[in-house]
Amino acid sequence: MLQIPALEKLVHELSRLPGIGPKTAMRLAYYILRSPDEYSDQLKEALQRVQAEVHDCPKCFNYTDQDECRYCKDPHRLNEVLCVVEEPSDIMRIESSGAFRGRYHVLHGAISPLEGIGPQQLKIKELLEKVEAGLSGNGPVVREIILALDADLEGDTTVLYLSKQLVDKGVRLSRIAHGIPIGSDIDYVDDRTMGRALENRVEV
Amino acid sequence: MLQIPALEKLVHELSRLPGIGPKTAMRLAYYILRSPDEYSDQLKEALQRVQAEVHDCPKCFNYTDQDECRYCKDPHRLNEVLCVVEEPSDIMRIESSGAFRGRYHVLHGAISPLEGIGPQQLKIKELLEKVEAGLSGNGPVVREIILALDADLEGDTTVLYLSKQLVDKGVRLSRIAHGIPIGSDIDYVDDRTMGRALENRVEV
Repeated sequence: MLQIPALEKLVHELSRLPGIGPKTAMRLAYYILRSPDEYSDQLKEALQRVQAEVHDCPKCFNYTDQDECRYCKDPHRLNEVLCVVEEPSDIMRIESSGAFRGRYHVLHGAISPLEGIGPQQLKIKELLEKVEAGLSGNGPVVREIILALDADLEGDTTVLYLSKQLVDKGVRLSRIAHGIPIGSDIDYVDDRTMGRALENRVEV
Repeated sequence: MLQIPALEKLVHELSRLPGIGPKTAMRLAYYILRSPDEYSDQLKEALQRVQAEVHDCPKCFNYTDQDECRYCKDPHRLNEVLCVVEEPSDIMRIESSGAFRGRYHVLHGAISPLEGIGPQQLKIKELLEKVEAGLSGNGPVVREIILALDADLEGDTTVLYLSKQLVDKGVRLSRIAHGIPIGSDIDYVDDRTMGRALENRVEV
């Protein structure tokens, strides 16, 4: 359509990004073309730096550019409570609530038989090793694991798998609550959320 | 917030793109991080190639990677009708309608006193030179200029300026019609569009 291979390639690469369709990708590519070379240079440098500097934290698998991530380094956090999340970006969401002061563990995904993602592709072995290390005295004792996984089929499957693996390890296992979002109108809540909200009702 | 400067820089550069807010930029940056290095490499190469290969057509200022753009090269197009657009991306919109078979001229913007864009910043001098060249026998004669500019204040200002510059040059000057979009319901048309549609009514 464009008959300019370089431009078509840029549109193609941009449209691989999530939420960017071919039309948006074309708009972005035209914007990049219209901008001074400085912008393209900055974007290339940013991609380069992220590739070179950012890697997984060896302890919790959050992203970091240091030897350990800021949450693993922080001496004021509780070692005995672990919050398990699917993606590093989920940590930010939890941190900004200010409601958690323990450590994190990033699985880098959730179990999804449909997409061919099993427990081996995730950082589940490393989670179980952390718990074992605490039990055998080779690391801090883990008393509670809070699963902050997505409220979808993959999240549910992962919760089920982890609960089977962690049974009889002496760890309190919980999942963050599902229910009606604060500030929302009951009229607009879907059936499954309402079902969960009723099931998990809290005494007042 | 992220405390990883390389990641923050990538988020910053991505959020400079049109329609990409800080939240979307963060989602895109995390996607890039999660992807294999191959994606980042491809995106950098695409940016590099666009910078190196794509430039303005010397005749009409459309983007091209050749010595002339495909519309200037095409021997089957009418030389005497010029369609003036603001951006190269507008050409694609017009081409896909299949309703125009002349040549193009890209202004690379529209007159906007608010943003400090005057006629000198646009390819207006080059448009007037094309008309003059036709008059003096140094180029193809331009008999009609169709202004396909945006239907906003900047477009209106540019039409006014060009009509003043092109008076008494023997060129038929027109602007694409404004009115009710095909297939749309009259109930949902705004007042100004309805005003224009009534004003520019066509006898049947």
